[in-house]
Amino acid sequence: MERLKPILDAIPPVDRRLETEIRAHLDNLTKPVGSLGTLEDLAASYCLITGTVTPKLGKKRIVTFAGDHGVAAEGVSAYPSEVTPQMVYNMISGGAAINVLAKHIGVDLQVVDIGVADPLEGASGLIRRKVKSGTDNMSSGPAMSEEEAIQAIRVGVDLANAAAEDGITLLGTGDMGIGNTTPSSALCASLIPCSVAEVTGRGTGIDDDRLEHKITVIERSLEVNSHLLSDPFSTLAAVGGLEIAGICGLILGAAGRRLPVVVDGFISSAAALAAMRLSEPVRDYLFFSHCSAEAGHRIFYERLGLRPILDLDMRLGEGTGAALAMNVIEAGVKIYNEMATFDSAGVSGKE
Amino acid sequence: MERLKPILDAIPPVDRRLETEIRAHLDNLTKPVGSLGTLEDLAASYCLITGTVTPKLGKKRIVTFAGDHGVAAEGVSAYPSEVTPQMVYNMISGGAAINVLAKHIGVDLQVVDIGVADPLEGASGLIRRKVKSGTDNMSSGPAMSEEEAIQAIRVGVDLANAAAEDGITLLGTGDMGIGNTTPSSALCASLIPCSVAEVTGRGTGIDDDRLEHKITVIERSLEVNSHLLSDPFSTLAAVGGLEIAGICGLILGAAGRRLPVVVDGFISSAAALAAMRLSEPVRDYLFFSHCSAEAGHRIFYERLGLRPILDLDMRLGEGTGAALAMNVIEAGVKIYNEMATFDSAGVSGKE
Repeated sequence: MERLKPILDAIPPVDRRLETEIRAHLDNLTKPVGSLGTLEDLAASYCLITGTVTPKLGKKRIVTFAGDHGVAAEGVSAYPSEVTPQMVYNMISGGAAINVLAKHIGVDLQVVDIGVADPLEGASGLIRRKVKSGTDNMSSGPAMSEEEAIQAIRVGVDLANAAAEDGITLLGTGDMGIGNTTPSSALCASLIPCSVAEVTGRGTGIDDDRLEHKITVIERSLEVNSHLLSDPFSTLAAVGGLEIAGICGLILGAAGRRLPVVVDGFISSAAALAAMRLSEPVRDYLFFSHCSAEAGHRIFYERLGLRPILDLDMRLGEGTGAALAMNVIEAGVKIYNEMATFDSAGVSGKE
Repeated sequence: MERLKPILDAIPPVDRRLETEIRAHLDNLTKPVGSLGTLEDLAASYCLITGTVTPKLGKKRIVTFAGDHGVAAEGVSAYPSEVTPQMVYNMISGGAAINVLAKHIGVDLQVVDIGVADPLEGASGLIRRKVKSGTDNMSSGPAMSEEEAIQAIRVGVDLANAAAEDGITLLGTGDMGIGNTTPSSALCASLIPCSVAEVTGRGTGIDDDRLEHKITVIERSLEVNSHLLSDPFSTLAAVGGLEIAGICGLILGAAGRRLPVVVDGFISSAAALAAMRLSEPVRDYLFFSHCSAEAGHRIFYERLGLRPILDLDMRLGEGTGAALAMNVIEAGVKIYNEMATFDSAGVSGKE
């Protein structure tokens, strides 16, 4: 925890005093007060995050972190681990869902190898920041050492800083890693906290038997590592993942730059949870894009009192939910910036 | 009803036999089966509507119909009727919410005077198809004659045909008309059917007293016109609105051209309900964009067994929900068209 202090100390709380002026502007636009609902809330949050009543929109970027999981050896996923590098190659050639959606929404995509077991030879266009060739099997010990977790967090912070310097104004998270709903559920169970069964789902599509086995594996992982679950950082190291720590770092780094972050699905939410537990003010910098069909995600939102923007039964990750939600967030900011006021348009007010 | 026969007879049922091939293609894309949830369903619907397994995307258009309501004289709205023409001018000058969102999503916008009381002099860019200068007060007799309702429906059919000829591939509905939640609730109560109180809400923002008054006015309207509520067409004429009949016509005309229609909020849903009651196959051509914060809309969806794409607490109309949903529908079609398959990308399948 101590070694994260400079990163955490850089995160300012948002200045809520701006809210009155922001809401007054929204109420003066040619529509009944509050009638654009969530779009107005998104615009207000965007203003608060960026600390202005005259928000600007610029370029968007999604950073998708790929990593492997030692715990996949326990048979917790419907797919073999070889799919992680295969999907990385697929993303680099533009054939994955996130490529299609990023292009559709007009988002720049970065794919980062932060911990894929495969060397990914010849993968051009990949950002190579491998901390370790996959985590260790958390069901028999910690997934990462604290040193490795710090390194993975720093990769995320670096990429957030690079985004801020590149003029990105909306940053999205994404993940790829066979087996990664398993550490995500472990993190949720430990950090919400709640029972493992509540936050464990079918991931890419396992049957009842394997789901029961997955719950047992997560429970064992939490037990084996129980002495390491005393604070959110060591919990992230013990039962997290390299891509999850990378996303956590991206979020922390973005908040330090007052850069709004759009959190993708269940895996990204587990990373966001770790970030929020590490630093209270982080929460105000986050947009939660969608509610995943992965069972634990609804519990996550309920327990944290958060409401996602979209609910489209998606459960793919990669940043796909973040991409779609970015369009809605930008719609809100444009409403704020571009609509006429009652005065300017000569429209009568409420009777 | 008889006079609508040519319009209704032109609507073909969709050919569900294509569904197996559509789903097989979706299942072969590099993602776990079904993991893009609603996006996959939207793509499948788009294919079925257009009758192809190789769907094309083209231009998008929203048609926003404006009309006034005689029943507004009963004090059912928070805003005076003069706001209808004021907002039409605002839309024409680009200052309304729908202008901002249409531009954001890349949608062409048509604003149609189908029944505004004001002559709208000098309003350039407006499509002038005024059937009548506002409806009559439905709380003391029918809102429109059947002849007027037919004319209004034909305006919508004409605009759907024009859209098809202009190469539009996704057509959205929109409305503007002070007082129009009142006839919309009356239509829902009569055509779902259900109690007036269940489907009546605060519209642009009325208080408890006025809400109670609004319910009474709607109940009186249904009573006064009870002899005219025997079929969906005469119901639409008696307790509907000119813009509602126009939207109903747009939907019927679009279905006749196998053109997918994105239904906006509560008012558009009331029009869609009339269209679905007039012709069973119409339902398959519709995408329901969002769940409005207007109280009756959730009941509408529940009773009809429909699920909207978005739920953003919006209650503005104009086509604002349709615009946002169009982006999600296109995302689904692009997923279908542009993603790699397991074979082409060399990705392993489920174990």
